[in-house]
Amino acid sequence: MFKKNIFFLAFLIVFCNNLLANDGYHLWLQYSYVENASLRQEYLTALEKLSTSGNSETIKIASKELNRGLSSMLGPEFSSTSTNNNGNTLIFGAKANLSEDVILQLGNAFNEINEEGYIIKSYSLKGKNHIIITGNSDIGVLYGVYNFLKLLQTNKSIEKLNIIDSPKIKVRILNHWDNLDRTVERGYAGFSIWDWHRLPDYLDPRYTDYARANASVGINGTVLNNVNANALILTPQYLEKVEALANVFRPYGIKVYLTARFSAPIEIGGLKTADPLDADVINWWKEKTKEIYNRIPDFGGFVVKANSEGQPGPQDYDRNHVDGANLLATAVAPFNGIIMWRAFVYSEHDTTDRAKQAYPEFVPYDGQFKDNVIIQVKNGAIDFQPREPFHPMFGAMPKTPIMMEFQITQEYLGFSTHTIFLPTMYEETLQADTYRKGKGSIVAKDLDGTLHNKRLTGMAGVSNIGNDINWTGNPMLQANWYGYGRLAWDPYLSAESIADEWLRLTFSNNKKFIEPVKEMLLNSREAAVNYMTPLGLHHIMDTGHHYGPGPWVSNLSRPEWNPIYYHKADSLGIGFDRTSTGSNATEQYAPEVANVFNDLNSISEKNLLWFHHVPWDYKLKNGKTLWDAMALKYQEGVDQVASMITTWNQMESYVDAERYNNIKMLLNIQYKEAKWWRDACLLYFQQYSNMPLPEGVEKPTQTLEYFQSLEFPFAPGN
Amino acid sequence: MFKKNIFFLAFLIVFCNNLLANDGYHLWLQYSYVENASLRQEYLTALEKLSTSGNSETIKIASKELNRGLSSMLGPEFSSTSTNNNGNTLIFGAKANLSEDVILQLGNAFNEINEEGYIIKSYSLKGKNHIIITGNSDIGVLYGVYNFLKLLQTNKSIEKLNIIDSPKIKVRILNHWDNLDRTVERGYAGFSIWDWHRLPDYLDPRYTDYARANASVGINGTVLNNVNANALILTPQYLEKVEALANVFRPYGIKVYLTARFSAPIEIGGLKTADPLDADVINWWKEKTKEIYNRIPDFGGFVVKANSEGQPGPQDYDRNHVDGANLLATAVAPFNGIIMWRAFVYSEHDTTDRAKQAYPEFVPYDGQFKDNVIIQVKNGAIDFQPREPFHPMFGAMPKTPIMMEFQITQEYLGFSTHTIFLPTMYEETLQADTYRKGKGSIVAKDLDGTLHNKRLTGMAGVSNIGNDINWTGNPMLQANWYGYGRLAWDPYLSAESIADEWLRLTFSNNKKFIEPVKEMLLNSREAAVNYMTPLGLHHIMDTGHHYGPGPWVSNLSRPEWNPIYYHKADSLGIGFDRTSTGSNATEQYAPEVANVFNDLNSISEKNLLWFHHVPWDYKLKNGKTLWDAMALKYQEGVDQVASMITTWNQMESYVDAERYNNIKMLLNIQYKEAKWWRDACLLYFQQYSNMPLPEGVEKPTQTLEYFQSLEFPFAPGN
Repeated sequence: MFKKNIFFLAFLIVFCNNLLANDGYHLWLQYSYVENASLRQEYLTALEKLSTSGNSETIKIASKELNRGLSSMLGPEFSSTSTNNNGNTLIFGAKANLSEDVILQLGNAFNEINEEGYIIKSYSLKGKNHIIITGNSDIGVLYGVYNFLKLLQTNKSIEKLNIIDSPKIKVRILNHWDNLDRTVERGYAGFSIWDWHRLPDYLDPRYTDYARANASVGINGTVLNNVNANALILTPQYLEKVEALANVFRPYGIKVYLTARFSAPIEIGGLKTADPLDADVINWWKEKTKEIYNRIPDFGGFVVKANSEGQPGPQDYDRNHVDGANLLATAVAPFNGIIMWRAFVYSEHDTTDRAKQAYPEFVPYDGQFKDNVIIQVKNGAIDFQPREPFHPMFGAMPKTPIMMEFQITQEYLGFSTHTIFLPTMYEETLQADTYRKGKGSIVAKDLDGTLHNKRLTGMAGVSNIGNDINWTGNPMLQANWYGYGRLAWDPYLSAESIADEWLRLTFSNNKKFIEPVKEMLLNSREAAVNYMTPLGLHHIMDTGHHYGPGPWVSNLSRPEWNPIYYHKADSLGIGFDRTSTGSNATEQYAPEVANVFNDLNSISEKNLLWFHHVPWDYKLKNGKTLWDAMALKYQEGVDQVASMITTWNQMESYVDAERYNNIKMLLNIQYKEAKWWRDACLLYFQQYSNMPLPEGVEKPTQTLEYFQSLEFPFAPGN
Repeated sequence: MFKKNIFFLAFLIVFCNNLLANDGYHLWLQYSYVENASLRQEYLTALEKLSTSGNSETIKIASKELNRGLSSMLGPEFSSTSTNNNGNTLIFGAKANLSEDVILQLGNAFNEINEEGYIIKSYSLKGKNHIIITGNSDIGVLYGVYNFLKLLQTNKSIEKLNIIDSPKIKVRILNHWDNLDRTVERGYAGFSIWDWHRLPDYLDPRYTDYARANASVGINGTVLNNVNANALILTPQYLEKVEALANVFRPYGIKVYLTARFSAPIEIGGLKTADPLDADVINWWKEKTKEIYNRIPDFGGFVVKANSEGQPGPQDYDRNHVDGANLLATAVAPFNGIIMWRAFVYSEHDTTDRAKQAYPEFVPYDGQFKDNVIIQVKNGAIDFQPREPFHPMFGAMPKTPIMMEFQITQEYLGFSTHTIFLPTMYEETLQADTYRKGKGSIVAKDLDGTLHNKRLTGMAGVSNIGNDINWTGNPMLQANWYGYGRLAWDPYLSAESIADEWLRLTFSNNKKFIEPVKEMLLNSREAAVNYMTPLGLHHIMDTGHHYGPGPWVSNLSRPEWNPIYYHKADSLGIGFDRTSTGSNATEQYAPEVANVFNDLNSISEKNLLWFHHVPWDYKLKNGKTLWDAMALKYQEGVDQVASMITTWNQMESYVDAERYNNIKMLLNIQYKEAKWWRDACLLYFQQYSNMPLPEGVEKPTQTLEYFQSLEFPFAPGN
């Protein structure tokens, strides 16, 4: 009985997994059995037959995924090889492979989608009800299939479908800060999933599941290696391995990119210089690029971190970023490649406010970059803090493509221990109004090219993926990989809708689960801001590894790496004056924005200490002194984690035991660490405020000396 | 329907996994559904009811494992909560919890087993047929349960059972060469499974499955950290984490041990010396040990690597190994702890043949070590080569406990790429006759204490486990973890029986699968010897990482690290003269053994070049010159791998697609690497032999210079 239907078995695997043990490997592609009998019947009736058009690897993959998902969700009653010819049919295939009468059903829809878009439409033909999943390309069809499956996963109706969707951003990419020794910089989910030693001949099954997961959210590119690059990845020994990965990813619509170390011509080319204007250097990159494209015809291009934190770059030869970027852009242009040039630059020789240093290195050069160069800008001007005002470069370069760099891995946000739903943070930045072209000039509009009419658009996410079985170290943090992907596809999505989707796909459609857990997730980022860096504080994590609080750290080799540089706590107050009376970082924003930041009465208190140095007894809008309010924020954050635990404890019956317990253990650590943050920071700042803890804030259980004595020589990711 | 029986679901999970996708996570505890209906019925009839005696954590674990295994293997027809009181019953519990009438059934059996042994017996009582699984302790019962389940897993009859079994070796331990940064020295299966950063509060489910796997083969101890130790593991911050792991492992009968860095009193104790005779040092270890036992009352003890390869030790203070070992032995003795003191010592200041250096450092001190010290000796006198004659210390210390150190991880045997079944290698050493007390004084008898009547006995295996989903990087290499465990329980087992067991447990009971794959495994070690180091060659792997051939390497800082030191190839011949005309390493063996090794006419040609420097035209027993024979051996090894591939290609229908394909890809790499070995070694040695390749040996496809130019800066495990 069991042997006959291989897809029945797929159903059984997944159904069982959801109840007993779930190691989290299957991410949001759980394809849980649809228990609601009438809903299941609606699906079965609509999907009596599947019909594929096209024969490419991509279409085969789409077909396989469809069968896998439907078998799993619909159980033994589903059969994809039905010979029932009176039935309703699901047709999928790209426009080029559809029959005329089907194309007629779609009217003008193909013109409404781009090359990666998809259409899912219900129609009747000759008395039968059909659903068509199509697009202008096979990849569009694949995306359509994933989105169709998502309808069932989220228990939506599939009657009268009329979905027309295209990605709004062209380059939707993951950045893996993976090193060749398989350590992952700022990685907290084990180690690199790329088994370089056994590539190209051993293709870990994880590579395929990685591709599936990314394709399911529309991620279409991956940078395999660390921005702190090793030139060896450009040698034949490694290019052969990169090629093998590219071959796995290609039918999923995922291009491979590499980080290019600017000094590679010296390190592996034997040249004496890497000067971007040197003829031999130009030729070296040209030949190297050709070599890569010979192996990987659709290689995406290079990411470059140059003249930043010790990385080599054009400024080593008194050239500028334009010279450097254009050097590489010229090399990849004949092959339709792009260069993602990172704007994360700040110099140890420049005493200007670190938040100001990127802008003058790029904005004056607007329009000088070749048109296949895109400048990769972090969401804020410092470095992925729990809260940062949006980066002043957004909207500021009308003639130059600009892309967002979000961090998914939680370098400053509790590693893989703290359950923090990041799409609320991403949303905050994407919805921020730059005012570069008047009101409504939100960051998302710069990113999707509509603000300044740009052709090349992109978004990058620094991956939180590692070789842990559940990929992200904490099952909850899979939501951030998922959410990042969704926002790269459509930066206008709400964090709430993403949380809702993800919870349904990954855990359960039960309202009694969704409602409380969604609220828990949506509040989690603010909780972290509260227990780590409230009211605009930033960069006060401990040295190097960034694990735990370290507001006292003042001894690092570069002043702008020290926490004291950022909070500037003294007996008078706390905070970084970035207004016109201070570093004047505000001047880099549009006047409407700068005016608000500059003005204590207008600025949102969330950003207060980012832009102002404020007395300890300064009265906030709620009448509390800054000190009291700060202390109460820390306590609020701790209480919010306690509340998350209370919520999660009630979810046991809705979740498999394994993931339930894993998340429970991690929430417990998060709670301990939130208290550690509160205690250490308040004890330290209290030395300057000289004010008592307000009522409602729990007393610390250790001394400041104790907290300062803590060392973590092997904290991961460093 | 599906919700009602949780164990039915367990059955479904596992059944399905076996057909479609199997990531190998469940090792040899697949508990595959018994498809043979009549056999299944025999089992169901015998197991109508389960009855537990006892309530400890261990018994609960045994009960859970029993139910898990039986549900999975017997399917929905099995119900462990049957109220059918007319049925045959499986009873399990320790002697102390059994009723008198049951104990009566067992006669004298309890006296025939030791504290960890078990009895599985069929009997009739009041007209009902029962099976009893019992032992003198709950751990014995747990072992009995695993062995009972194995009967079903291997499709054996469970009628008329009368199994009485005890482990023959007391301390059966894994050594993890895991570092605190989670890298694994000589690890090729990902990284360390110990998530130190999130211990003690996050208990990865893998810790439990690790414990289950080890308990199922009777492994009862684990050394968590690298022999190249970091003293930090003895600090409170880490001891808290160690304690958490010990708590997980305890009910599975697994004790935790740690590697002790000899200089810890200085590094973490603030002392100025680590002299074992210094009063403060003695006191420091006493207090530190007490601190550990306060947390972990059944802590096993310490492993020490001292005065070897740069590790600190007693000789730094002009003391000897006895002083060092007894220092620690005194500290742990009040708590019944042991000290495993490694004999792997050789000095860069001593030009004596490396193979000779351990013996004089230990054997003359026989009887001087405290009785809770056990000397840990590698299987051979160099370092885990594909073939080594047994270590001369076996049998040579009548008054001192000695334990075996085998390597499971394949440092010199192809990492996790090469499918090599190591129990044949272990068996070779265990069955080797030391002649210390006349004929029959095999190594196994020294290890189980019967040769010299020793009380403390042990075996250690350097683990091949990492955080890869399948634990060992290559599903086939799980067999070596399994086989090591079986031999630690009973060093007299045959490699063939182990291969048979493991294949049945892990893959299939089908004879058409077992027979050819068993043969493939049993030949695999000799194949590796052939394509790497035939005829007694050894230690000619490439520098540092030991990946691939490097017989030319001659530039390492210590002469006895250079391959040329070991093969001594010159125009006259090849091989290391260890006879009385050379280093006289043979004198360390019993005369009967030495005479054979010394005599060219008697010595097995497998050991020829380990003990003799032989002319290139020396005639072997088969009439071929040494050069021709060597070349043909290399070719034979390559052909054997090709044959393994042919065999495996025919196994597709017996194995799930995922593991089938994974192993297939790895065999393909093994074949390429076997040819690389053959070509590089023969090209290099040919410079000295000045003889052509004999007929039958394939010509190399690259030059010697090419092979010498290869670099692998990121080969794993280094």
